[in-house]
Amino acid sequence: MAKRIYLFSEGNKDDRDLLGGKGANLCEMTAMGLPVPYGFVITTQTCREFFKLGNRLPADLATEYRVALRLVEDRMGARFGDASNPLLFSVRSGAPVSMPGMMDTVLNLGLNDDIADGMGARTENPRFAYDCYRRFIQMFANVVMDVDGDLFENDLREYKTAAGKVLDTELTAEDWQHVVTRFQRIVSIPQDPYQQLEMAIEAVFRSWHTPRAIVYREMNNIPENVGTAVNVQAMVFGNFGEDSGSGVAFTRNPATGAKEFFGEFLFNAAGEDVVAGIRTPEPITALQSRLPEVYDELLATQTRLEQHYRDMQDIEFTVQEGRFFMLQTRGGKRTGRASVKIAVEMEHEGLISEKEALMRVSPEHVESFLHPMVDPEAKKEIIARGLPASPGGATGAVVFSADEAVRVHGEGRTVILVRRETTPEDIHGMKVAAGILTELGGMTSHAAVVARGMGVCAITGCGELAINHDTGVVNTADGVSFARGDIITLDGSTGEVMLGDIPKTEAASSEDFQTLLSWADKYRRLKVRANAETKEDAARALELGAEGIGLCRTEHMFFEEDRIDIMRAMILSSTREERQSHLDKLLVFQKSDMKDLFTVMNDLPVTVRLLDPPLHEFLPHDAADVAALAQRLGKPVEEIAATARDLQEVNPMLGFRGCRLSIVYPEITEMQVQAIIGAAVELHQEGLRPRPEIMVPLVVNVREIRLITEVIDRSIRKVFEEKGVSIPYRVGTMMETPRATLGADRLAPAVEFMSFGTNDLTQMTYGFSRDDVGKFVPAYLEKKIIEQDPFVSLDQRAVGRLMEMAVRESRRVKKGIKYGICGEHGGDPRSIQFCHELGLDYVSCSPFRVPVARIAAAQANVGDG
Amino acid sequence: MAKRIYLFSEGNKDDRDLLGGKGANLCEMTAMGLPVPYGFVITTQTCREFFKLGNRLPADLATEYRVALRLVEDRMGARFGDASNPLLFSVRSGAPVSMPGMMDTVLNLGLNDDIADGMGARTENPRFAYDCYRRFIQMFANVVMDVDGDLFENDLREYKTAAGKVLDTELTAEDWQHVVTRFQRIVSIPQDPYQQLEMAIEAVFRSWHTPRAIVYREMNNIPENVGTAVNVQAMVFGNFGEDSGSGVAFTRNPATGAKEFFGEFLFNAAGEDVVAGIRTPEPITALQSRLPEVYDELLATQTRLEQHYRDMQDIEFTVQEGRFFMLQTRGGKRTGRASVKIAVEMEHEGLISEKEALMRVSPEHVESFLHPMVDPEAKKEIIARGLPASPGGATGAVVFSADEAVRVHGEGRTVILVRRETTPEDIHGMKVAAGILTELGGMTSHAAVVARGMGVCAITGCGELAINHDTGVVNTADGVSFARGDIITLDGSTGEVMLGDIPKTEAASSEDFQTLLSWADKYRRLKVRANAETKEDAARALELGAEGIGLCRTEHMFFEEDRIDIMRAMILSSTREERQSHLDKLLVFQKSDMKDLFTVMNDLPVTVRLLDPPLHEFLPHDAADVAALAQRLGKPVEEIAATARDLQEVNPMLGFRGCRLSIVYPEITEMQVQAIIGAAVELHQEGLRPRPEIMVPLVVNVREIRLITEVIDRSIRKVFEEKGVSIPYRVGTMMETPRATLGADRLAPAVEFMSFGTNDLTQMTYGFSRDDVGKFVPAYLEKKIIEQDPFVSLDQRAVGRLMEMAVRESRRVKKGIKYGICGEHGGDPRSIQFCHELGLDYVSCSPFRVPVARIAAAQANVGDG
Repeated sequence: MAKRIYLFSEGNKDDRDLLGGKGANLCEMTAMGLPVPYGFVITTQTCREFFKLGNRLPADLATEYRVALRLVEDRMGARFGDASNPLLFSVRSGAPVSMPGMMDTVLNLGLNDDIADGMGARTENPRFAYDCYRRFIQMFANVVMDVDGDLFENDLREYKTAAGKVLDTELTAEDWQHVVTRFQRIVSIPQDPYQQLEMAIEAVFRSWHTPRAIVYREMNNIPENVGTAVNVQAMVFGNFGEDSGSGVAFTRNPATGAKEFFGEFLFNAAGEDVVAGIRTPEPITALQSRLPEVYDELLATQTRLEQHYRDMQDIEFTVQEGRFFMLQTRGGKRTGRASVKIAVEMEHEGLISEKEALMRVSPEHVESFLHPMVDPEAKKEIIARGLPASPGGATGAVVFSADEAVRVHGEGRTVILVRRETTPEDIHGMKVAAGILTELGGMTSHAAVVARGMGVCAITGCGELAINHDTGVVNTADGVSFARGDIITLDGSTGEVMLGDIPKTEAASSEDFQTLLSWADKYRRLKVRANAETKEDAARALELGAEGIGLCRTEHMFFEEDRIDIMRAMILSSTREERQSHLDKLLVFQKSDMKDLFTVMNDLPVTVRLLDPPLHEFLPHDAADVAALAQRLGKPVEEIAATARDLQEVNPMLGFRGCRLSIVYPEITEMQVQAIIGAAVELHQEGLRPRPEIMVPLVVNVREIRLITEVIDRSIRKVFEEKGVSIPYRVGTMMETPRATLGADRLAPAVEFMSFGTNDLTQMTYGFSRDDVGKFVPAYLEKKIIEQDPFVSLDQRAVGRLMEMAVRESRRVKKGIKYGICGEHGGDPRSIQFCHELGLDYVSCSPFRVPVARIAAAQANVGDG
Repeated sequence: MAKRIYLFSEGNKDDRDLLGGKGANLCEMTAMGLPVPYGFVITTQTCREFFKLGNRLPADLATEYRVALRLVEDRMGARFGDASNPLLFSVRSGAPVSMPGMMDTVLNLGLNDDIADGMGARTENPRFAYDCYRRFIQMFANVVMDVDGDLFENDLREYKTAAGKVLDTELTAEDWQHVVTRFQRIVSIPQDPYQQLEMAIEAVFRSWHTPRAIVYREMNNIPENVGTAVNVQAMVFGNFGEDSGSGVAFTRNPATGAKEFFGEFLFNAAGEDVVAGIRTPEPITALQSRLPEVYDELLATQTRLEQHYRDMQDIEFTVQEGRFFMLQTRGGKRTGRASVKIAVEMEHEGLISEKEALMRVSPEHVESFLHPMVDPEAKKEIIARGLPASPGGATGAVVFSADEAVRVHGEGRTVILVRRETTPEDIHGMKVAAGILTELGGMTSHAAVVARGMGVCAITGCGELAINHDTGVVNTADGVSFARGDIITLDGSTGEVMLGDIPKTEAASSEDFQTLLSWADKYRRLKVRANAETKEDAARALELGAEGIGLCRTEHMFFEEDRIDIMRAMILSSTREERQSHLDKLLVFQKSDMKDLFTVMNDLPVTVRLLDPPLHEFLPHDAADVAALAQRLGKPVEEIAATARDLQEVNPMLGFRGCRLSIVYPEITEMQVQAIIGAAVELHQEGLRPRPEIMVPLVVNVREIRLITEVIDRSIRKVFEEKGVSIPYRVGTMMETPRATLGADRLAPAVEFMSFGTNDLTQMTYGFSRDDVGKFVPAYLEKKIIEQDPFVSLDQRAVGRLMEMAVRESRRVKKGIKYGICGEHGGDPRSIQFCHELGLDYVSCSPFRVPVARIAAAQANVGDG
């Protein structure tokens, strides 16, 4: 039988899977000789056993942990359950992958009436002892016995009111003893410390399956069957007195990445008081002045830990009666800017390699270099100030709960989530918020940590706000107020709150960021292109590192004001001759646009998709617009209305669009191809080297491609003959109907490249209309029917399977045919990873996502080994 | 090297693949000692060589056929190219699978100026000789040299007018000699008979690739790479004089199947005159009276042939100067009724087995037992009479060309194609016509043969009609007229044409048909169910042999007049309570409907699909209807309009429908399940044995199923508890999104059966909205981008591939899970064959298709071996 219990002296940091991250690091720190309160870890394997036994502990586990307990008692010089010299424990979860705040913890375990008295006597600090005891009752009742925590909070408030006191610190030993008595009327806690321990272990195991933990795992792609370890650790007490306290610190600045020790400390407080953000802590320097020796030990420890782990560490520690104890170390969450700076600087310091530096940065974090920032020059009236918890600027409508955030966001609006504080229960709302603003909590509070992790702008600890949830109104200290639905702007980099939509500047790059991107380019295999139609977008894409255009949507050009009426006249033509005359006019515009694009991109490939949307999208539908158009074109209103009606479709997504237009109106394709190739040839004659690629959308079988290729080739020959020159070009197909992916081996021989249009492919594979999913996808997400919106991150199971089949089968008949993706997923890191695994040649995404894609592509390749 | 040339004495009927059907049968008849003009066959392998050589004959082929020619000359006692004793040849195509009229033929080959003179002298029939020569020039020019046939027809007409003559028979030898001279001004035919032969062989090979032949092969699933044989056969002449003629006959009546010799004969006419339908021939009995010995020989021959081939034969023969020659025998095309009668009677006669009898009947043909017939009791005014070429009654709008037929049919109207005659060029129009009416042609004309083959009602040879294509008006002999777009009715069983829509009676069964169906049931493995909602449909389905209901669409019940407003009120409810009160009312209706259905089906399974369509389908949309509803429901108009607007979708096919409704409104599902199971339980208590199966539509993943199954099981338990009894039931899923088929192994464990909804699966796999395909699918069919409408016959390549994956992968995890299909394809024979191969358990189709499905399922199984 496998060993179920590991003492802290028995494991090391590589035992994460078995001991969980926290347990492995406690073992590692113990091995490093750091002052870690001793304890033991119950393995994740035991947790899985527990589940298999129908949520029961293995029969002989108690025997095993009693042996470990004796050894901990020996080392700590105190006894569990011994009123004369009591040892208390913290019992904490600790999964292999960090799930901060998601599972349960019980502190001060091992207290009962006698032991509380004994502890008061022995420490000569009965106030401390009864405070610990009431905390234990409260926590054990809530976590283990599922008693509503508000019962205790309300009772305590009642007691304080009756006693004429406001702050907890005003309460005496006797007060706390009264409170304990009152709490014991609410709940009856087992007096036997061993029974407490067994119940706490079970509760931690069970907490693996709380709904919020399940959501978190789904959000973070953590496997469901891993289970958690349980850390049973001797208690030390930050709330022992004024020479005690609890702190949290980062070995570097988690917001900027600067190499500076950064932390917060709360005197005479337990660790949970710091993390919960209920009292605002002091900067770590306060410790330096008041307990300089402790500070020196802390400083030395943090340096050792960073060198040891070769990464920025997030540490938790406690000081009891002037003695320093390490409680936890782990890789620190950081902002995007910080993660880049830290990774690049650690490489420069020789701590890590370029590849390691690359893997340290989350592709989403890269976005923070690209996020808009509140324009420093903008005229703005600051109505409140809080802590700059997560950088960037955001504007949105005020909402007051996570559910409200989801609902209003579902209506297509940007939201700012305003809360007194946030808890893990708020995750779903924080996920959709553009910004988060809290009244309470510090830089290491839940709201701050989570927001930085998500790369969402956040301001915490904004105590100037008075939020009235009932009226939906917030009053600031300055007497300004704003209400539910009002638009406000947050500056997460300065902590400033403003009314209205304040202008923002473009995100700025940094030298570290450029260094990291250059490493990304060195190590990635996937090419990164951009989706762009205008020369401005193309220039931005180039600047951000795009290696070509993967998708130029030609229809966008026809929506411009000076073209739309010609386009409409073309659609409304009653004869082929009339249509041709309008096409001739469109040709001039299209060619000029293409010249602009080719000029910017010069010798990089530009993939131009033929006209894709259904024609009725170009026509006006309301009566006034139709009448105005009729006047402009000199056509009867009824004729235009009739054509619009004729073109109307029940399901336009599955209708007369894409290459179906090319089949029925080859003259449109002729015009487009002549414009594209005409532009390229003229620039070629001017000395540029344009590389046009013509892409046919919505293909279902090879005969479509053959027919359209004939038209394309004929049109191109015509241009070549007219200009007396020929240039290289490619013709390819989009892969966006399931049928195309299922017959890729037939399509491949007819084309030179293939590009997945995963938006449409997702729509058809799911039968989800992107325009209509609002009616049921929120319910689907809420009920966990789908883990994530398949339009955001590629559904690898089904859509991905079709892609995999397509790539494999087309390359079987046409080895090495060029393959790309140009749907929204082309900029999503998880999807990019998948595209790398599929062996695609490039991803194409919106210009701002290009740096994200470069990093993601590099990580995919480095991760390949 | 393979033998390229087979003399008629060298092959037999089993050599179809090598010698083509016609060639193999000519060899077989030669071997039987029948009077077949001698000749030889150039193999299909040679045709494939010809294609491989870039449409050139193999170099040594000429040497080979000259050897064969000598042997034919010896046997026939005449010489090819010898003016003093000329031997002429017919050169005909003959593919392994019959493609009637699709490829080219040249007759009278071997004539030139000298030989025509010589033939005139030797036969002492110069009129015949020059008639043959002008026919040869005309045919060779048209078929081999691609000269427009109208040039000759017009020239001949001109000549006759100038000569004051009307009928060909009025023309003398001198006239024909003049015509020949005139024709030679139009075209210069090679005088060398060997050059003629070589060119003709090449032309026949080339004709494999004419567009009409390609269409025909696509329509009939004949592989493209087979090629045709060439039959080079000595000419005999039905146009030699009044003791000559050509005939076509069937060994049994091809319209009724009666065991009676049935044929037509045209005196003094070449075979092509009969087939072309230009002159209306005499019944075969005319031969009996005028050439009794020939008739006796014919009768004996046809009997031998039928016994020999063990099938009804379609024979062509020629009489020259009182001598009988067999030119062709092949399996005769027949009507559906005839095919059943012949198959069953031949089994009774001991000629064939039950299985063979089954395989002789085309499943489509079975429909003729089910087709409506013009009601014999109906009041009707007959405006014209023609030949009863293909049975059944049909009503539709008059169109005058195949293209028009396709267009008007594409608009959703039923059409009657009215033509002077039909040609293979008209196939696409005939395919979509409900009925065909021709002015010319007999019972064996192109129109008649093709219509019978297609099971389409047809009247031919209706000489009383005068069709004016320019004005689009038809005048009858009686002075009645009808025009393009008018509605007429054809009675293909009597040959009567009527104005307007004449009532039709239900199709009648027959004893033979029932016998055949009983054999089908004996030999099939696939079960056949019906799609039905009403007790009437269910009763009909039962009568037609359905073994259960495979699809009961519950929404149909809510569209009934007494329910629709309750349904609407339910949709418009603003609270869950309000909705529940309307659901309670709907429950009563739904339960009553379900009781009706279960009562009819008793112990057969009834698969009930949960509500599927988007809710807005139930709401009125135009202002007047909304206002009326508002009044009836006592709700503000604006509220109803707003809900209707809210529910409106961009792509309803991919929107808020199917099981998505069950997820968002579980109360609807509760109501439906309580109705279904409540009905079943009550009937169970009355002694019936209902077998309800509840089917969840539009599933994309297993979590949907799990959530909905919870609701279903809870609702069922509620009913069971209330009634104090439980009955067996099943819960299953439709497989109609690509994602469901791609994740079938995950779905299977959660359900008890799975049923393909191939309508939606086809829509999503192609990205074709069935409601919108009208805008491009006609162009797709016309341009041969798709061979057939994938909504009619299953696209086996892609949709079928998804189905195959689904079945394989779900059975891997849940062996033998029950699988069905309930889309329109469930009644399509080719699709049924595919479903059999997939290993499905049942197909479900509309009640009228049930017998078709029974036969198709049996054929699939018998064909399996």
